[in-house]
Amino acid sequence: MDDQLKFLNQSAMSEQRRRPRVVILGAGFGGLSAAKALKSANADVVILDRHNYHLFQPLLYQVATAGLSPNQIATPIRQILSRQRNATVLMDRVVDVDLDTSEVVTPARRIGFDFLIVATGARHAYFGHDDWEAVAPGLKKIDEATDIRKRLLLAFEVAENTADAEMRQVALTFVVVGGGPTGVEMAGAIAELARNTIMRDFRNINTCDTRVVLVEAGPRLLPSFPEKLSASAEAQLRKLKVEVIRGDPVVECSASGVRLQSGAEFDAAMIVWGAGVMASPAARWLKSDADRAGRVIVGPDLRLPGHPNILVIGDTAAITDAAGHVVPGVAPAAKQMGQHAARAVVAMIAGRKYPPFVYRNYGNLATIGRKAAVADFGRLRLAGFAAWLVWGFVHVGFLIGFRNRISVMLDWAWSYFTFGRGARLITGDDR
Amino acid sequence: MDDQLKFLNQSAMSEQRRRPRVVILGAGFGGLSAAKALKSANADVVILDRHNYHLFQPLLYQVATAGLSPNQIATPIRQILSRQRNATVLMDRVVDVDLDTSEVVTPARRIGFDFLIVATGARHAYFGHDDWEAVAPGLKKIDEATDIRKRLLLAFEVAENTADAEMRQVALTFVVVGGGPTGVEMAGAIAELARNTIMRDFRNINTCDTRVVLVEAGPRLLPSFPEKLSASAEAQLRKLKVEVIRGDPVVECSASGVRLQSGAEFDAAMIVWGAGVMASPAARWLKSDADRAGRVIVGPDLRLPGHPNILVIGDTAAITDAAGHVVPGVAPAAKQMGQHAARAVVAMIAGRKYPPFVYRNYGNLATIGRKAAVADFGRLRLAGFAAWLVWGFVHVGFLIGFRNRISVMLDWAWSYFTFGRGARLITGDDR
Repeated sequence: MDDQLKFLNQSAMSEQRRRPRVVILGAGFGGLSAAKALKSANADVVILDRHNYHLFQPLLYQVATAGLSPNQIATPIRQILSRQRNATVLMDRVVDVDLDTSEVVTPARRIGFDFLIVATGARHAYFGHDDWEAVAPGLKKIDEATDIRKRLLLAFEVAENTADAEMRQVALTFVVVGGGPTGVEMAGAIAELARNTIMRDFRNINTCDTRVVLVEAGPRLLPSFPEKLSASAEAQLRKLKVEVIRGDPVVECSASGVRLQSGAEFDAAMIVWGAGVMASPAARWLKSDADRAGRVIVGPDLRLPGHPNILVIGDTAAITDAAGHVVPGVAPAAKQMGQHAARAVVAMIAGRKYPPFVYRNYGNLATIGRKAAVADFGRLRLAGFAAWLVWGFVHVGFLIGFRNRISVMLDWAWSYFTFGRGARLITGDDR
Repeated sequence: MDDQLKFLNQSAMSEQRRRPRVVILGAGFGGLSAAKALKSANADVVILDRHNYHLFQPLLYQVATAGLSPNQIATPIRQILSRQRNATVLMDRVVDVDLDTSEVVTPARRIGFDFLIVATGARHAYFGHDDWEAVAPGLKKIDEATDIRKRLLLAFEVAENTADAEMRQVALTFVVVGGGPTGVEMAGAIAELARNTIMRDFRNINTCDTRVVLVEAGPRLLPSFPEKLSASAEAQLRKLKVEVIRGDPVVECSASGVRLQSGAEFDAAMIVWGAGVMASPAARWLKSDADRAGRVIVGPDLRLPGHPNILVIGDTAAITDAAGHVVPGVAPAAKQMGQHAARAVVAMIAGRKYPPFVYRNYGNLATIGRKAAVADFGRLRLAGFAAWLVWGFVHVGFLIGFRNRISVMLDWAWSYFTFGRGARLITGDDR
């Protein structure tokens, strides 16, 4: 262990170890904002992620639908933190946390910590049907997005290549499961791809024959939005010819399609899963209580009960804040928690008290397509073009990296005027 | 077969079949320029490729070294030809050509042709050591480039993570096999990545300790260039601290490194193969004579001997043109042959004669790094900054797609001023 410590902090260890070490698990919105907020802290910051990049997940559906390429929405973590001298980036995978020795365990080593911030995010949940994952991929990682892009584009190739009318219609049918923001965005984007972008590209099929079916188990789309905006989102989707089905849960996913509780069946080339999330295995590592979605239950101080030096944030945590709000699993909430956790650690190091976390809700956005979106800013509610403009500015504004911002803006401008999309490549192993 | 014909040419087949069908195999520089040159021909053009995109191969090494992202150098074939109404794009894989029935055979169907243009390009050659491919990937396809990028970036992660000095040096050692343009470009680009781009990103390693070894079996680098430019290229590489070894062929590649004929051994994290090419299996499909590199031997009329309606072009063909030049395996030559083949087909349809092919050599370029390149325009020979500027303009100019051109120019400008690189993502399946 001593060797590892030395290796991790060559400079700090040249003298006696004095500075406390803060280990951050995960470089998503929560973890990265915690690391940055510790910039001037008198502490060594170690941030660990299994990928070498920070991913701007809210735009991942645009990679899946060929609008953007992966490097436009991902930035190397090392690059983001290259000038923060107290930060060390490790690309590694957490397998456990040793609460007795205060060490993070990875396949090859143990990393001691004085403070631990757990921000390992969430994965899809298949509600006990893990075998559905192979036929209904979700959308959390870059490789999943490029895989969905490949399946999507290959479906049109299959349709173009077949002389069998029935097979052609199946190849042109896409089912999106889940009426939350991801599902709404995917359904809208697939419909636009088919109806606008690739219209002229084929000779044997009419891509306007594409069927996009959006299935929501609950009574309305976008349940976290006001009812009026849910209805508006549905109307905007129907205008794009998306078939919206509500109140009818999926009971079966297979390579040939989906079956719903009502008995309705859809033969489809592709199913995209956006129905549920499950927190990372952090609760298991921390031997702590978890809610039904696997999230670690922490109080408004973000602390793991019984372990004041361990804080849990972002999608990994189930939190009701000091004002009594249930904190939603969205990027702005994760960022705020990351900053709060950093301040809390600084206060603990200094032996000061710090106030509990209060979530500030700046608004809620979901996009549907070109000039189509909904936005909820409390009293101000927008739909259609205005909401879409706000959505565009907010997302470009929050993208990390000046260069990415410009490149995404240019691509969007290009798509807007030409209806084209820049990233229509089928990559990945040949099968 | 009739069914297939009908399906492929619904419009043409609604009456009696009148228009001849030209089938083009491969949508690289040769095949695509043939298809475009047939735009106003009174013929149905069917272009078949196993990928859905045309790849600008000369810039592939920039994807492998994280300078550009795949979609910046690849454009969907359907998009390129979407407005050419006589062209049909098929994504399929050729397994054979039936010379008796004049049909192309794919796994699922047969496609009849009146004229066939074979432009299926080339692959790497391992000179009888096909087992080396797994440890020494080549650079012809997008998936190979992203795989090399992943190995390259992971090597620095391994070096950063290890406390063992010897292991660290191995992880920071890269061997490039082959001193042609690809090898020279890769070696220069890896050295620049290590020395400029990621310098500040690590805490435990000094990326300037990176060793890049370029091994050429022959007596000099860039053998297709004048000797003076070969020497200049080597000097420019040495300035980037690339170790250049000439006249010493590789006799063994393994997961741990390479061994040379002289007995010299290099333990390396990664080997990149740029030493030889082998034509696609076209000679086997066509039951024809091939040279040692597997290329179909055709005359200056580009015709397969005994089959005047079959033309072979690009890297698939071994051609000495009507002026007695051996046509080199470069993109401009493939484009010229594609255009020539198209004109030849039009002439044959009209029952006219057409002149034999003459290759026009507009020059030869290879880049080494930032402000470093060599250019050979016959009498005018350039090295260094001037050659590098010419190289940049020529490559951006030939990129297909207005949008790609702008996006690559912006990325290059950004890299030039910041020494940064935009596509440093480790993607692909987790292992």
